[in-house]
Amino acid sequence: MPTLKVLGELGIVKILERALGTHALTVVGFGDDISAVRISRRQVAVLKTDMLVGSTDVPPGMTMKQAARKAVVANVSDLAAKGVRPLAGIVALGLPRNLSERNVREIGSGLAQAAKEYGFPLVGGDTNESKDLTISIALFAIADGRRLILRSGAEAGNIIAVTGDFGNTSAGLKALLEEKRRPTQLSRPLFQALYNPRAQLDLGLRLGASGAITASIDSSDGLAWSLHELSKSSHVGIKLDTIPISRAAKEFAEQYNYQASDLALYGGEEYHLVVSLKQSRLAAAFKAAKGKLKTIGVATREFRGVRLSQAGKEIVIERKGWEHFKKQK
Amino acid sequence: MPTLKVLGELGIVKILERALGTHALTVVGFGDDISAVRISRRQVAVLKTDMLVGSTDVPPGMTMKQAARKAVVANVSDLAAKGVRPLAGIVALGLPRNLSERNVREIGSGLAQAAKEYGFPLVGGDTNESKDLTISIALFAIADGRRLILRSGAEAGNIIAVTGDFGNTSAGLKALLEEKRRPTQLSRPLFQALYNPRAQLDLGLRLGASGAITASIDSSDGLAWSLHELSKSSHVGIKLDTIPISRAAKEFAEQYNYQASDLALYGGEEYHLVVSLKQSRLAAAFKAAKGKLKTIGVATREFRGVRLSQAGKEIVIERKGWEHFKKQK
Repeated sequence: MPTLKVLGELGIVKILERALGTHALTVVGFGDDISAVRISRRQVAVLKTDMLVGSTDVPPGMTMKQAARKAVVANVSDLAAKGVRPLAGIVALGLPRNLSERNVREIGSGLAQAAKEYGFPLVGGDTNESKDLTISIALFAIADGRRLILRSGAEAGNIIAVTGDFGNTSAGLKALLEEKRRPTQLSRPLFQALYNPRAQLDLGLRLGASGAITASIDSSDGLAWSLHELSKSSHVGIKLDTIPISRAAKEFAEQYNYQASDLALYGGEEYHLVVSLKQSRLAAAFKAAKGKLKTIGVATREFRGVRLSQAGKEIVIERKGWEHFKKQK
Repeated sequence: MPTLKVLGELGIVKILERALGTHALTVVGFGDDISAVRISRRQVAVLKTDMLVGSTDVPPGMTMKQAARKAVVANVSDLAAKGVRPLAGIVALGLPRNLSERNVREIGSGLAQAAKEYGFPLVGGDTNESKDLTISIALFAIADGRRLILRSGAEAGNIIAVTGDFGNTSAGLKALLEEKRRPTQLSRPLFQALYNPRAQLDLGLRLGASGAITASIDSSDGLAWSLHELSKSSHVGIKLDTIPISRAAKEFAEQYNYQASDLALYGGEEYHLVVSLKQSRLAAAFKAAKGKLKTIGVATREFRGVRLSQAGKEIVIERKGWEHFKKQK
């Protein structure tokens, strides 16, 4: 039998999806940033869960407070991509036995900080003993079912845009793990991306309300991966004319001899939004984004997948990124 | 600094509760079987999360399918105690790297079976790599905020009742762990209690609708613990006139020389409901329960805590049970 290493996260999700089937009330099931069930003619309940695991999701040097905050941020980011404001959350903790009371206080403080930042209450939870630090957050929201922005709405001709430059998280991780830098030796953008990532909630809500977005995904599995997901879900190709690389990632790449575009494309845990926009509503989107939107390409029916047009040539961008169990990055 | 062993689950929850504070929308926070937030004048969203961890919540001999099913049952049981029907759920998985594809199929199948048994969809989730098998379920429901049955509503004079006899899970665990029995050597009630526990959802819904219940809690932390929680939350004492011990637990106790009442009182992961009933509505409760309700005592203002009246004497029932990190059972 294949082990999880062979199966990968996508294989696992496929098995679960098949086992669980669909249900009359389900509006969005597996395969998008969130799930949604119908609760009235117009309204859907939006549900999201994302689990942070100590041994795989916590970079060296991260405090318990930062880890707990990040667990919430990862969930908020998915709602941000859908243009949905979280109403409340709950938290299930798996705590190793050797943690101290101070560690627990830090976790509480990180959860509280994130809840405050994004303006919703964490109203309950469950605590357990576990071999691996586990912070499993579930968020709940109510949305207008017709206005939910899925991964599947991009159409040929739509402009592809992102809410930030990429590569900081990836560069930060490589600095720690491969270049053996200490956290304090990281440049500020790399440090912030690793230890204090931010979800683009306000921006996501404004973009959602602008009426310009046809599809959206959060970039937490990496830019290339997210573009491929948009492409697959929307049945369009994506033709990039640029790769949005952050200045700090470029500097790091130059100093340590990495390919800057790889840092930007194949990282992960970088919480920007990747969206497709109606050409006719571009102005509204840019106004809503207040300078935080950057076009990087266009959706096309010429091919499927993701390609970069550069100097007259088309380079195929691989479907690679952060996938648990496979660790391709 | 105290470690989690000293702090215990209650100490951890207290720290989290203090860190997270309360919020204007919160109707039920920490400290009940579920949490609830207001979503309209009358309605509340009911949220529940409970995490199953391989190293602490899975008895020897349990299959992955049974473990996944049990993870759902534990969550449904808490909604059952509140008289609330689950609308949908989501699941976050932490899977050890060495699991096989078959293991994942079993987990999918166990989740699907539970969702079918209790009539709601599991609509999405998240998969992760972890050192410890982790199945974190979150359930969502909508309820009339005025009709939610909390732990805090019991009044002096109310009748205390349970929906089943206790001791099977505890006896089953002791048979495996202390008497070194194999699962196939367990009597059927012990086997079922350990590997195929059932949540009393239909019964909980019927009792909730009967208008007889003033307070309710699920007994998953043990009978004594649950009675103490009702007592504490409702500011009443509970005077027991009997301990509801299952026949199979009695037989096991006799054969292997255990105290049967200890098996019934201080076990855990036994998913009955412990309720308080208005005397004036007793008939309605019994009718709703269709023979599955057993009175065991009365709420009183004479003392706080839990006591057993036996042969003219009052025996204090200790506040003991299943608490993670402390492992008192």
